[in-house]
Amino acid sequence: MDQRISLITLGVRDLNRARAFYERLGWKRAFFGAEGVAFFQTGGMALALYPRRDLAKDAGVEEANLGERAAVTLALNMRSKEEVDASMAEAEAAGARITMPAREAFWGGYIGHFADPEGFLWEIAWNPAFRLTEDGSVVLPD
Amino acid sequence: MDQRISLITLGVRDLNRARAFYERLGWKRAFFGAEGVAFFQTGGMALALYPRRDLAKDAGVEEANLGERAAVTLALNMRSKEEVDASMAEAEAAGARITMPAREAFWGGYIGHFADPEGFLWEIAWNPAFRLTEDGSVVLPD
Repeated sequence: MDQRISLITLGVRDLNRARAFYERLGWKRAFFGAEGVAFFQTGGMALALYPRRDLAKDAGVEEANLGERAAVTLALNMRSKEEVDASMAEAEAAGARITMPAREAFWGGYIGHFADPEGFLWEIAWNPAFRLTEDGSVVLPD
Repeated sequence: MDQRISLITLGVRDLNRARAFYERLGWKRAFFGAEGVAFFQTGGMALALYPRRDLAKDAGVEEANLGERAAVTLALNMRSKEEVDASMAEAEAAGARITMPAREAFWGGYIGHFADPEGFLWEIAWNPAFRLTEDGSVVLPD
């Protein structure tokens, strides 16, 4: 599995409050069409703020259990659906627990979720809207 | 506060188990003198695996409360102690709760911790061992 992290997603209880805090720090939100999520470009990766319940649903875990497993997802973005499948297989072979097998996402991507041995959630994603540079950095749409 | 993330630290219950998992994924650990922590270079940032109790202690929070606040710290590395102080002040002014004021760390750095409105922990750090490139990417020692 590629040694990169594309996004850190914080599962938040109050998206507006969380977004306002990072904006008060002087951070500039990426313009991006999706409602209900806020993206910030942070160097060659991105920080996302996303409601806890949506994060739990996407990852195939109970929201009530999120506290213990940390309401955070680390994402690794790949260049194709085939690469997503290959990385999910590698993770499973390494001992990951698949919480949601790779599947088409309603927004046009292809994503799978697993938990590492400590329960930390990872998403392996192909997202046609997010460009990957040659070195694997992710570039949010302007 | 600079719009960057330098490290993601996962607070783990079993460091050897967690490290072995990422190594089975094919990830290569950075050589770095410190015992009791594992660093992986991930593009222009790094992933750290670190015992939960140490993460809690560093951040000035109770380990028992870590579950709810997610056993994860996002770190922003700065170029000087003065920059650490300035970023901590900016975060506090933006509504962050300071959990540990900036102070000298035993390993020779200078660090402060705050919680964002959702309770997610941030560390603002000056670490003389971790090089920052011009664009703010962090480069672990070889």
